[in-house]
Amino acid sequence: MSQKVNLGEQFSRFTDTWSPKIVAAVNDYDVKVAKVQDEFVWHAHDETDELFFVHKGRLVIRLERSDDVVLEPGELFVVPRGVRHCPVADEGAEILLLEPAGTLNTGDADRPGTAGEPVAGSG
Amino acid sequence: MSQKVNLGEQFSRFTDTWSPKIVAAVNDYDVKVAKVQDEFVWHAHDETDELFFVHKGRLVIRLERSDDVVLEPGELFVVPRGVRHCPVADEGAEILLLEPAGTLNTGDADRPGTAGEPVAGSG
Repeated sequence: MSQKVNLGEQFSRFTDTWSPKIVAAVNDYDVKVAKVQDEFVWHAHDETDELFFVHKGRLVIRLERSDDVVLEPGELFVVPRGVRHCPVADEGAEILLLEPAGTLNTGDADRPGTAGEPVAGSG
Repeated sequence: MSQKVNLGEQFSRFTDTWSPKIVAAVNDYDVKVAKVQDEFVWHAHDETDELFFVHKGRLVIRLERSDDVVLEPGELFVVPRGVRHCPVADEGAEILLLEPAGTLNTGDADRPGTAGEPVAGSG
């Protein structure tokens, strides 16, 4: 049987940013946590929507053809597939992500990305 | 473009219990919010895992062949497919659910269920 996941505890286990850690799986979807700081890279995921949920801090999701979305703790937003976006967290944030297993965080951007790995010390 | 979702605001829009409201979709998965109070019904979902996340209050997930899982705010648990479980919230709780669209909250229990509907006043 899987274990419950305490988000605060998970975030206490790592310090690196823009490096999602897998904390749970729902069928073939991964639930990931990440610390983010400053600006990421503009990218899109042509094959999947992507859910962002803010646990702590403030995350701004810049969107190519829409107004920025500003997420505070307890708020979530789904970036539709194919929509170019750039996450930014000037003051840092702790976020939860949901997307199909294997999804690279850099999407179609011309640089390496990570699809997530188990959080250190988990389980 | 979809809108951001503020969980607190969503929960302020309804009072009924054990009646999930769809607040977002990620591909063919629904993100739902529900208020829960007292005991639900024992059931299983043979075709899918089910994620529970507690926003407020305390949720106990009784499991047929394992210890109870007690979830406080900021904690989540995935009930694996096929595992009989019974959610209980003696003092009431506000929870978020994630599962494939069309999943009945009663699973295989011999009684009607809901697969979720949009929250009243949403959007």
